[in-house]
Amino acid sequence: MTAKVLINGAWRSSDATGTFQATNPNTNEKLPTEFPISSWADCDAALDAAFAAAREMRTLPAAVIAEFLESYADKIDAASDSLVEAAASESGLAKSPRLADVELPRTSNQIRLSAQSCRRGDWALATIDTAAGIRSCYEPLGPVCVFGPNNFPFAFGSVSGGDFAAAIAAGNPVIGKANSTVPETTRRFAQLALQAAQETGVPDAIVQLIYRTGHADGERLVSDPRVGATGYTGSRSAGLKLKAAADAAGKPIYLELSSVNPVVILPGALKSRGAEIVDEFMTSALMGTGQFCTNPGVVIAIKGQATDDFIKAVQDRFQSSPAGTLLSPAVASSLNQSVKTLCDLGAELLAGGGEVEADRCAMANTLLKATGKQFISDPEGFQTEAFGNASLLVVADDLAELREVIKTLEGNLTGCVYSDPGGSDDDAYEQVAFELIPKVGRVLNDKMPTGVAVSAAMNHGGPYPATGHPGFTAVGVPACLLRFGKLTSYDNVRPARLPKLLADKNPTGETPRQIDGAWTTDDVKG
Amino acid sequence: MTAKVLINGAWRSSDATGTFQATNPNTNEKLPTEFPISSWADCDAALDAAFAAAREMRTLPAAVIAEFLESYADKIDAASDSLVEAAASESGLAKSPRLADVELPRTSNQIRLSAQSCRRGDWALATIDTAAGIRSCYEPLGPVCVFGPNNFPFAFGSVSGGDFAAAIAAGNPVIGKANSTVPETTRRFAQLALQAAQETGVPDAIVQLIYRTGHADGERLVSDPRVGATGYTGSRSAGLKLKAAADAAGKPIYLELSSVNPVVILPGALKSRGAEIVDEFMTSALMGTGQFCTNPGVVIAIKGQATDDFIKAVQDRFQSSPAGTLLSPAVASSLNQSVKTLCDLGAELLAGGGEVEADRCAMANTLLKATGKQFISDPEGFQTEAFGNASLLVVADDLAELREVIKTLEGNLTGCVYSDPGGSDDDAYEQVAFELIPKVGRVLNDKMPTGVAVSAAMNHGGPYPATGHPGFTAVGVPACLLRFGKLTSYDNVRPARLPKLLADKNPTGETPRQIDGAWTTDDVKG
Repeated sequence: MTAKVLINGAWRSSDATGTFQATNPNTNEKLPTEFPISSWADCDAALDAAFAAAREMRTLPAAVIAEFLESYADKIDAASDSLVEAAASESGLAKSPRLADVELPRTSNQIRLSAQSCRRGDWALATIDTAAGIRSCYEPLGPVCVFGPNNFPFAFGSVSGGDFAAAIAAGNPVIGKANSTVPETTRRFAQLALQAAQETGVPDAIVQLIYRTGHADGERLVSDPRVGATGYTGSRSAGLKLKAAADAAGKPIYLELSSVNPVVILPGALKSRGAEIVDEFMTSALMGTGQFCTNPGVVIAIKGQATDDFIKAVQDRFQSSPAGTLLSPAVASSLNQSVKTLCDLGAELLAGGGEVEADRCAMANTLLKATGKQFISDPEGFQTEAFGNASLLVVADDLAELREVIKTLEGNLTGCVYSDPGGSDDDAYEQVAFELIPKVGRVLNDKMPTGVAVSAAMNHGGPYPATGHPGFTAVGVPACLLRFGKLTSYDNVRPARLPKLLADKNPTGETPRQIDGAWTTDDVKG
Repeated sequence: MTAKVLINGAWRSSDATGTFQATNPNTNEKLPTEFPISSWADCDAALDAAFAAAREMRTLPAAVIAEFLESYADKIDAASDSLVEAAASESGLAKSPRLADVELPRTSNQIRLSAQSCRRGDWALATIDTAAGIRSCYEPLGPVCVFGPNNFPFAFGSVSGGDFAAAIAAGNPVIGKANSTVPETTRRFAQLALQAAQETGVPDAIVQLIYRTGHADGERLVSDPRVGATGYTGSRSAGLKLKAAADAAGKPIYLELSSVNPVVILPGALKSRGAEIVDEFMTSALMGTGQFCTNPGVVIAIKGQATDDFIKAVQDRFQSSPAGTLLSPAVASSLNQSVKTLCDLGAELLAGGGEVEADRCAMANTLLKATGKQFISDPEGFQTEAFGNASLLVVADDLAELREVIKTLEGNLTGCVYSDPGGSDDDAYEQVAFELIPKVGRVLNDKMPTGVAVSAAMNHGGPYPATGHPGFTAVGVPACLLRFGKLTSYDNVRPARLPKLLADKNPTGETPRQIDGAWTTDDVKG
């Protein structure tokens, strides 16, 4: 029996071109349920339904959409056991503390924060110029396709994660394309979302779900005239193909791709608290078996005794720590390939490098080392992302060489700099930060990059090729909603015809609006 | 003698692959100065200098960049006669009232408003989360290439217009690519900008100028790793080629392309004040010989006596009004071609349709008519932009057909709806606006689209293919600066290392910042 797709409010048999099964990475066994590979007919039907839902949603009060999100968040919390069960089988991630205690509450929290922003309209940058008679705000831009990744089945899931919540909160329906590693988990979320939709009176087609398509159909989907925009989190190669298709059609696409998240450790930091930094690095590097978007994949330091000690300590810990389970056979194979690429380029293998057991998806914790000169000689090669429990240490001869290494970096989500709290690294910090900041979406001090707080000030984004655009964040409410908005000006539009956000009266009494140059929650003065 | 390019603060001979001359459209005679067609060597040198200037600008106080802009604005005002003289020769636009009294003051005003936003940092959406220890804001993203259009040699000029001012105010140097119709005008602006740079202590390479490149070099320029982003205003075909190149390299590009700016006139409006609407339409349609981005190219009405009267009145006025001068031989030729295309599709020619005089660039004021059915049968064809003094009237059988016409529209900068002030059109308005708003960047009531106020609430943008992205505006400070910013989060960054915009103390005492969820100009409380 093949699972059903969710199209236009009904679970129905897919017009399928084939089926697939997910694998339990803890056993390497295929999971029983067969999921359909949708043909274009499924995509086309979902697009029609989404387009109709988007029209309907334009006249819904924001509060109703917010209620849908809140109802959905409650259902997620209530269904925690079932969701965690499915995700643990499909992803190999630990039920506790990871899935049940961290990712699930984060997911429902993100949805609730998005609901709050939807209700308040604080994301829409309402701007009123009373003298010119012009008012503007961001509005929904149409159906959003969301392609979720394999590494956060809840918090970035295609019908549960940040892109989903942001797209809905901005007033758009979502067509979710499940990550093929977690189809059953995603199906369970879609069931809850549909229930919430039916109970709160939003269009059923506010959420739809397909599990997989052929590549050509995926490209056709993101470039279809009925689509408003796409959010994608996943591999660089697949993402760039979708980007090319969407770009050619003039459709916005927001991508979160690969990132090696450089961590620079300056000498004074190692001297003053090297042991602590070893601990922090270990936790960050091996958390979730290294499968975080913000995993510290490249650590850069300057040669010297303290660096040697750091490397030795990390090497010991990599060797002695148990290897976690990887998300899928494809992840294991890709990690193997990346490590091989780095070794072929001349990186020295300090730990791991091979598979550990045959009956699960796993690879020994892998630590590689290269010199600054090696890195600079082939920066593209040495920035090969090794997604998983592998990190590359780069040892520069001196600060000048370290700076040169940073100058060769591509765009990244994060960049960390550890420096001496006593101030001995302050000059070096300035030089390093100056080169690093333009390359990253988030700069951190004295702190590892994993852990993406859900904060209004969070930027989970960064320059290409970490993402597709340097101006947007995938996390952080309300900023992340802007991606799914269309700016609209109302010029001389009669008062009764203005959207509520732009009416004289503040729609909620607490919606921030820029009126004649100043942000305020007041009404427009008569 | 060939004009010099401005690279790295020096007027120097171009490494040219050829030369070109502009034409005076009032006489069809070539203007004397030869301008170089730059080779890649010029582009490469400009990119190097811009990249270095961008690094330098990152450490300049915002106030210094603001002073540069203000000094430049003053110089523009003082050099008005010379600028107007050059622009009148090259563009055929009237010295007065257009160039001297409208466009020039608008241009220096835009620059001053951008300077004010630069100084206050109000564009950067500074966001502070004290509990999480995360702060974010938009920052410069690197050198910006600006390709200016032919129709606003000042206000959208590549080294004087809105994109230029926005890019600089966001902290980025500009490489201007002059529009080939107005090279001497653009050269004069660049001279003033260089003087202002030298007097205010910003890097000389904050502004550079080339006049023309081969197509391949243009595409290479916008996709070069040293570039931060590109602003382009011009033809759809050239713009989309640049977009493809920039997209493939992951470089943001903001395009303002073609737009037919639909104007819907509902029956009650024609009945209640038809004669006034004729006047308003005539002014808007023939202003600047119809060469405004927001020219009302398509007027849609419902058949009936009032519509017949409107058409007759407009036809008479089109026939009796003198034909203005077009911007260049290329514009005249393209307008001729577009009118021919529309006639070939079956549009009825009510006025004009041919060239009027041999010794200047001009075409008779051209009015075309089609039925709603014709339009719906080939919407792409009937949306052929006829850039210049030509408009298409579309007469629908009834409101339902009018809605169908609107549903077939592509993205546009503007959409206008005229309706009865007495309320008889209110139901029709709702139906029309519902279809129209998703298609346009700015919706207007009872008002023609020409006239793009410089207002914080202005959106001069719109869905593809009117522009490249539905979320951005080319006009309206501070919103238009966001295009040239990169979002950066500072996570746990030590207080002394934060950018001034994110420090506890409000940098100007009047910079709006979102602190813990509320917009305020206060300092962060200790």
